[in-house]
Amino acid sequence: MQATGIPRDELAARRSRLLEHAGTTVVLFDQAYIQYYTSFNFLSNERPVVVVVGDELTAFVPGFEVARTEAEGPFDRIESYPEYPGEDHPMPLLARIVGNGGLAADQDGYPGILGYEGPALSEVTGRPVATLSSFIEGQMRRKSPAEVELIRHSARWCEHAHRLLQQYSVAGATEAEASLRAGYEATLAMLEALGPDYAGQLGSQDGATAGYRGQVGRRSAWAHAVAHNIRFEPGDMLVSETAAPFWGYNAELERGMVVGEPTDEQRRLHEHVVAAQQVAFDAFKPGVTCAEVDRAVLDYFDAEGIRGLWSQHTGHAIGLRNHEAPFLDVGDRTPVEPGMVFTIEPGVYQDGLGGFRHSDTVVVTDDGVEILTDYPRDLESLTT
Amino acid sequence: MQATGIPRDELAARRSRLLEHAGTTVVLFDQAYIQYYTSFNFLSNERPVVVVVGDELTAFVPGFEVARTEAEGPFDRIESYPEYPGEDHPMPLLARIVGNGGLAADQDGYPGILGYEGPALSEVTGRPVATLSSFIEGQMRRKSPAEVELIRHSARWCEHAHRLLQQYSVAGATEAEASLRAGYEATLAMLEALGPDYAGQLGSQDGATAGYRGQVGRRSAWAHAVAHNIRFEPGDMLVSETAAPFWGYNAELERGMVVGEPTDEQRRLHEHVVAAQQVAFDAFKPGVTCAEVDRAVLDYFDAEGIRGLWSQHTGHAIGLRNHEAPFLDVGDRTPVEPGMVFTIEPGVYQDGLGGFRHSDTVVVTDDGVEILTDYPRDLESLTT
Repeated sequence: MQATGIPRDELAARRSRLLEHAGTTVVLFDQAYIQYYTSFNFLSNERPVVVVVGDELTAFVPGFEVARTEAEGPFDRIESYPEYPGEDHPMPLLARIVGNGGLAADQDGYPGILGYEGPALSEVTGRPVATLSSFIEGQMRRKSPAEVELIRHSARWCEHAHRLLQQYSVAGATEAEASLRAGYEATLAMLEALGPDYAGQLGSQDGATAGYRGQVGRRSAWAHAVAHNIRFEPGDMLVSETAAPFWGYNAELERGMVVGEPTDEQRRLHEHVVAAQQVAFDAFKPGVTCAEVDRAVLDYFDAEGIRGLWSQHTGHAIGLRNHEAPFLDVGDRTPVEPGMVFTIEPGVYQDGLGGFRHSDTVVVTDDGVEILTDYPRDLESLTT
Repeated sequence: MQATGIPRDELAARRSRLLEHAGTTVVLFDQAYIQYYTSFNFLSNERPVVVVVGDELTAFVPGFEVARTEAEGPFDRIESYPEYPGEDHPMPLLARIVGNGGLAADQDGYPGILGYEGPALSEVTGRPVATLSSFIEGQMRRKSPAEVELIRHSARWCEHAHRLLQQYSVAGATEAEASLRAGYEATLAMLEALGPDYAGQLGSQDGATAGYRGQVGRRSAWAHAVAHNIRFEPGDMLVSETAAPFWGYNAELERGMVVGEPTDEQRRLHEHVVAAQQVAFDAFKPGVTCAEVDRAVLDYFDAEGIRGLWSQHTGHAIGLRNHEAPFLDVGDRTPVEPGMVFTIEPGVYQDGLGGFRHSDTVVVTDDGVEILTDYPRDLESLTT
């Protein structure tokens, strides 16, 4: 059976919950939030695309988006403005269509994307606007079975892209060659397997991607290096990354690998990564907080005397965005709840040598976690 | 001679001008602004990267970025916080390093990127913060000769990617095949030609891209379609897009094309696109405003009786971002000045048939424009 996005009734239920909380008309300016409540896809730029959730579901779009919004969107009503900035700024036009009652919004106006400037919603309506971003983020935290299913599909394609990346990451090849080829082939494979419905979900150039972001050799000690076209050499430590948005939803799969025969020191570091990840998996007891999961991993680092190799917290939530709150971080006391989806990615980073990190995506269950990404973690399987 | 980014003394002069305007220490939270004033590259996420411009140039980064920032950044001083959110939130730590005098910033705190939440800069410092985003946007508008040179290089690679895209966009092939292959080959060609310095400029997966974003066949009538993997058929109208950031700077090159022999109606629409673009080029007289350039194009549409085919304004500024203010739009009265760089892209869009748009990048000169993109505009050359 082919998954094809979030069912309409689930989208309607999300909006009902939002309206129930707000108790009034809600205006959405943020692209990810619009996608969460409507599944509508668009290219976000300086021309506002706004959704008004009330008795009707209304889209407010630039004129050139009307025909496509009618054909592809789920809206009861579509209103438009000619252009941004235009002779009449879009925001006063928006004020006319939001009704006369109370107002709530994800934020008080359209953000300054790509040079956009304009008045706040409260200014153009002359009414107070309650801001709902914290509620919305909270609503997005617990994923539904349909959302988990999409993330599971994303995980399958991350695995496929990673297998290709690993295959092409051999001594003598370069980072760009391996990652471009893996992304190209994995995206074509997704299009071939999933057909025209999936193709319509692609953004401007998105598809499956796989690469290293410069985390090759000694640079792998830098947890967020920027991509360089480094040639792989025997002994290089690698930290990979993959992405394969599936109807907007993301899993994350990353692996620490070695080009050629690993040294004893590399084996030791690799074992710590596997063990630290297992500590995190095991820490998901009912009632635990995000901070406690991260604390368990830090305790492992301390007990092993390797706190100096620590660099980043244990993980983050993931879903429609590739990073979401809450964070598996000693500073985040959010209780962990079933249905939350996290990356688990404690790493070790040693200046002058390199780094290792495995990242897997898990969904929280009633008594622990289910790991959604399925890819070997042992070093023998991760030697290219 | 190989261009390799903005010279250090030009970056220093930009910061001096900023400080002179602000009259006090300036805090930068926005990634594009940090790049503009320092050329420092990083992956923007929920962990704030902040730059403080004062007597010293200071970077405030998460701990895991310190080593890379030392190796690749231009900073006098690097301060760090352990992690976000962390046991101590980064913002109070930032407050300790911004000095005790007056404060200005691009915005009053770090924006809510990927789940980030935190207090405003004014809140953690207990001092008022003057916001400078309008000044900064204004400073970025007139490009220096070094910036124009980088955009010129970007244009060369957009042309190369477009030639490949056009070559692969034949009847029977699909949108994804053509665009993935063109992007793959053009990026490898850039890496090969430009070497390791360019490779270090690459973001996570960026390089040259070329594609259609779904603007194929009848969908080309939708000015911002979302990518679909449509199979090209004879008679399809196409609207392409390309990108090839060069040390962060962008040109834009787009072409309306036809698969196979064009019809008379397609020829007529195509001639209008070429003519409307020429009207825009010719409208750049000294002293003209952005609105007047767009008005000249609208007058052409009216005079030809084709206002119904109009859909979008004439163009936008471009540079470090692929869309910047000001806009060539009847609502933007910004005076055009030498050194500004714009896209010129009036299009025609006919529901049920398709659309055409040529986009070229121009730099404003003392008496007109110089066209930086060099690619055929005639339909014979644009038939695949």
